[in-house]
Amino acid sequence: MSKPVCAVVGVGEGNGAALARAFANEGAAVALLARRTDFTSKLAKELPDARAYACDAADSASIAEAFGLIRAEMGDPTTLIYNAGSGVWGDVESVGLRDFEAAWRVNAYGAFAASREVIPAMKAAGRGVIIFIGATASRRGAPGTAAFAPAKAAQRSLAESMAKSLWPHGIHVALIVIDAVVDLPRTRERMPNEPDDFFLKPVDMAASAVWLAKQPRSAWSFEIEVRPFREKW
Amino acid sequence: MSKPVCAVVGVGEGNGAALARAFANEGAAVALLARRTDFTSKLAKELPDARAYACDAADSASIAEAFGLIRAEMGDPTTLIYNAGSGVWGDVESVGLRDFEAAWRVNAYGAFAASREVIPAMKAAGRGVIIFIGATASRRGAPGTAAFAPAKAAQRSLAESMAKSLWPHGIHVALIVIDAVVDLPRTRERMPNEPDDFFLKPVDMAASAVWLAKQPRSAWSFEIEVRPFREKW
Amino acid sequence: MSKPVCAVVGVGEGNGAALARAFANEGAAVALLARRTDFTSKLAKELPDARAYACDAADSASIAEAFGLIRAEMGDPTTLIYNAGSGVWGDVESVGLRDFEAAWRVNAYGAFAASREVIPAMKAAGRGVIIFIGATASRRGAPGTAAFAPAKAAQRSLAESMAKSLWPHGIHVALIVIDAVVDLPRTRERMPNEPDDFFLKPVDMAASAVWLAKQPRSAWSFEIEVRPFREKW
Amino acid sequence: MSKPVCAVVGVGEGNGAALARAFANEGAAVALLARRTDFTSKLAKELPDARAYACDAADSASIAEAFGLIRAEMGDPTTLIYNAGSGVWGDVESVGLRDFEAAWRVNAYGAFAASREVIPAMKAAGRGVIIFIGATASRRGAPGTAAFAPAKAAQRSLAESMAKSLWPHGIHVALIVIDAVVDLPRTRERMPNEPDDFFLKPVDMAASAVWLAKQPRSAWSFEIEVRPFREKW
Repeated sequence: MSKPVCAVVGVGEGNGAALARAFANEGAAVALLARRTDFTSKLAKELPDARAYACDAADSASIAEAFGLIRAEMGDPTTLIYNAGSGVWGDVESVGLRDFEAAWRVNAYGAFAASREVIPAMKAAGRGVIIFIGATASRRGAPGTAAFAPAKAAQRSLAESMAKSLWPHGIHVALIVIDAVVDLPRTRERMPNEPDDFFLKPVDMAASAVWLAKQPRSAWSFEIEVRPFREKW
Repeated sequence: MSKPVCAVVGVGEGNGAALARAFANEGAAVALLARRTDFTSKLAKELPDARAYACDAADSASIAEAFGLIRAEMGDPTTLIYNAGSGVWGDVESVGLRDFEAAWRVNAYGAFAASREVIPAMKAAGRGVIIFIGATASRRGAPGTAAFAPAKAAQRSLAESMAKSLWPHGIHVALIVIDAVVDLPRTRERMPNEPDDFFLKPVDMAASAVWLAKQPRSAWSFEIEVRPFREKW
Repeated sequence: MSKPVCAVVGVGEGNGAALARAFANEGAAVALLARRTDFTSKLAKELPDARAYACDAADSASIAEAFGLIRAEMGDPTTLIYNAGSGVWGDVESVGLRDFEAAWRVNAYGAFAASREVIPAMKAAGRGVIIFIGATASRRGAPGTAAFAPAKAAQRSLAESMAKSLWPHGIHVALIVIDAVVDLPRTRERMPNEPDDFFLKPVDMAASAVWLAKQPRSAWSFEIEVRPFREKW
Repeated sequence: MSKPVCAVVGVGEGNGAALARAFANEGAAVALLARRTDFTSKLAKELPDARAYACDAADSASIAEAFGLIRAEMGDPTTLIYNAGSGVWGDVESVGLRDFEAAWRVNAYGAFAASREVIPAMKAAGRGVIIFIGATASRRGAPGTAAFAPAKAAQRSLAESMAKSLWPHGIHVALIVIDAVVDLPRTRERMPNEPDDFFLKPVDMAASAVWLAKQPRSAWSFEIEVRPFREKW
């Protein structure tokens, strides 16, 4: 297969699908990784040369297995988009030890494990793109993000460490901080009175990911935030 | 004239020219503002529908005059790129009161004055783009930037205040932090032993400015940094 | 006079007076600088060895004159507290060029000018303390701080540049970011329904300034923020 | 026992011991927590009413057990200092999954677990102090801190979330960022040519922790950094 391979970890109907579509439009064969494959199997049929892989991003063995299959079936990814991320809401008293660990596992540990799967081939090739999808919580803790924010902060710090060590090898590591409510069926339901303008459209965010992947290497960006023009910040 | 008008304040042979060329390539009629017009007059002949204007960016009266002419001759700018910026190097003891003020005037005061020239029409149209070109010093002070860093920090803070008040009106205010040595005849001369890879190419930085100007408004970026892949940071 | 001299620039009934009292309690002879001397003259009588000086902090000539007098009458200041600071509220459209400049002059330019008056003697002595009093706006711009935030950001950046060049000479430059509504007659009047706990007490902020001035030099702080325990941030 | 109880998690010969001594000097009965008790048992004999507890800060069950004993034997801690922290050095390729997790466990997870042990009683009392000891890596990732920096960033973010939810209940959560090489036998050995001035003295850092614990609540600090006056930053 001569198409470049883009692996997207964490593909649901929102940002993950939009990222997959955007990179497929750019000519990539996209590997779609998600815990369950019911959605990704359908999406894989829509996108030329895409394939769905079951992968629990919180589990490094599952990541190793999925990337082993991708390498065997599609080839070495030249682009990795790490979009897996979740976390319960709650303050330090209401979230539990398990929540705290689970958030870290999927947002930070999985990002570390997935990156290690793709770095050797990227380094050998002298090029590659690794983009982490962050959130407002990547930059600061809030009362209700006692589990989520530390996980996202760890992810951001990892991205920065990786950027500093991998950029000189031609691997563009970057972080997109989504400072917005994403336009999803469930967010629309939760906020039925907000206008269209209130929401970040996944396709618009994905356009910036595509831009980052194309930046000429004399002027790379590490961290960009994206938010709707109406967002208060 | 039906082309959109892009005003670039601070056009020399490096970033300013690259920005002008990039926006001209995108179909804009570019107004080229610089203190002296010897370079910009020549550049104006290269670019379709471009015009050169004499403007001292440190002087609000000069800015008002130049923008008055632009509006009369070219129409209301829909894009403003504020690239004027300079400052002597030196610590708090070696720079003087005059240096401290001069740096602020060209980096911050001029940015404020120029923005005020374009905002009313942008607001009436419900759209526009204002991009400030910052530097490493926009984010932090160093021993040798006692005059320059406060000026750039003021510019960044102004950009943030403007973004928060103008984004909801459809005006995309953004800041590009150049964390690099720019590839210019004078920097090459100063650092003859650095390889090509060491320098940021103005054309590559300008590509990110063009991207910012195109971002869909559900996912705008405010601040991005650009640096060469080999830069230490 | 064998007491150490502490110069406080910007002495009104709130933070300035509290800072003056706090350093007087620590045994300093305090020079009280303010545009008008009606309040500072009375305060000078309360504090042992204190003196009032007329000084317009936005005017470098006035600063030079006041510090010339201080040096002649009291001796070289070993501590400088720069508390002068003000700015009109308004966004980029509602504040004018004059507001923008005035805010910078009193918050940043005056800080630079005053620092330069005390640095030579501190450097010769191999010790000294310079503390700038910042605000929330030192760290970020808001819609309504188009004039004030750039001025405070410039001040913060200057403080950082100075810290990096002067710390190695034994001069402890630091910044206190007040992220609060200060307890003053005029703020109480404006917010009559807020409880006591809502306000930052100047005396409590001043206690942290005193602490900074005492920190042992193997563990100096550059920037600290202070806010009431009930503040939302 | 009527003395206030201060629990210090992570007591070795450097910062931990200095923090314990500083709070003992302030009149606290100090609980000394460390994995091994050989050093803490000796230290406990030096300090009035101090006790040593075996505790693996990376293990929430061990933390729960130690704090259960502290509550039973000494009473509810009114101050918690979380000083446990370590991590191997290495970039994303050289550190392993186990290193990445181990660093997070001791720096972030343990901080979360220990905090949860003391919060209920502090909240009931309407007062308390929780201080986390951070590092340069709390604020940014470097090439060689691919495991350590994400762990410290998570800790910092947790501290911020906790501060925002607990301050209004009278619990002062704060973070001390140590931006320095700490003066320890092993650092002196590693850097035999550095002068005394190069190192941060634990006792000096501890003085700032004591200050934070005393700050009046109308002007609390969340994050302070400490570094030697000669440090480059």
